[in-house]
Amino acid sequence: MNRLSLALIHYPVVDKFDQIYTTAITNMDVHDIARSSRTFGLDAYYLVTPITAQQELARTMTGFWTKGSGKDRNQDRFAAMELVRVASDLEQVVKAEMDAAAGDKPFLIATSAKTCSKPTISYPQGQELIKNHASTILLFGTGHGLAPSIIEQADVVLEPINGPGTYNHLSVRSAAAIILDRLRGC
Amino acid sequence: MNRLSLALIHYPVVDKFDQIYTTAITNMDVHDIARSSRTFGLDAYYLVTPITAQQELARTMTGFWTKGSGKDRNQDRFAAMELVRVASDLEQVVKAEMDAAAGDKPFLIATSAKTCSKPTISYPQGQELIKNHASTILLFGTGHGLAPSIIEQADVVLEPINGPGTYNHLSVRSAAAIILDRLRGC
Repeated sequence: MNRLSLALIHYPVVDKFDQIYTTAITNMDVHDIARSSRTFGLDAYYLVTPITAQQELARTMTGFWTKGSGKDRNQDRFAAMELVRVASDLEQVVKAEMDAAAGDKPFLIATSAKTCSKPTISYPQGQELIKNHASTILLFGTGHGLAPSIIEQADVVLEPINGPGTYNHLSVRSAAAIILDRLRGC
Repeated sequence: MNRLSLALIHYPVVDKFDQIYTTAITNMDVHDIARSSRTFGLDAYYLVTPITAQQELARTMTGFWTKGSGKDRNQDRFAAMELVRVASDLEQVVKAEMDAAAGDKPFLIATSAKTCSKPTISYPQGQELIKNHASTILLFGTGHGLAPSIIEQADVVLEPINGPGTYNHLSVRSAAAIILDRLRGC
């Protein structure tokens, strides 16, 4: 199976006024999305933040489960948390995936709850694109979503998740679970 | 559209040794599943716990967003949190839904990550059953899943969520998001 990974971006993302800001890493995002990533067979889950204290926090958080006493306590959580990587920015994620796949630049799929400037692709199209690339990275934004500069770097944008109505305020944990299921569920 | 609601059971559920226990209400379960419930057009989201101090906590938590200053601060969160109801047990949930639908006993669909004693139904079958009943309640367990006594009361059990492998340790927040999408997503 071709490589598929996920990057959760903490900077640059937008706040509710569409201004660029930085969010904090949260324990629940790390655990929930790691568990979803393991369930749907992802190869890596990158936490992206330029703040070195936050990177250190993320390493401490995951280290408890991958090297500390959490490893003996809960092998299932170990299996999820060992997918977690820490990166300063998207360039580092791209570089790490190029090294892991020993290949060209990975294909970048952005996700957004909003309609954005780029045309969107459907989930069946997303499945095909993942099959046709040696390595694909799914980009998720914290806060109120990915900054335009990240969307611009993406090759394509996935269509938003829609229910029967117009409400589109899922948590990033729920959105990631649904999108991984739509792209990789059985 | 027929009524569809969700009940998150905190007792009776099983722990990792398959013993019956009671879990605590967590803020993240309340918010994430309320947001998913609103996205997928559910009519109510029941937090089920027999512990009165926990019921009070749940009412304080949701009251901030439905009646307190959170309501003015974030209308989107209000729209999610106003779906939340508090109940002591499954019987109270059933009674409340019978009153809301002014009808017969609602149809009960249990969810489980494990293969259980009852035969399971597929997601397309679940969609059909929801269409054919005036009111349906989806039952989710916290901890390590619903107690056998709850599974026995359910009319059917949904098949577990599968990815490409055998890992099945999603958070209940992620599982609820995926199941609502599979049953009600567009």
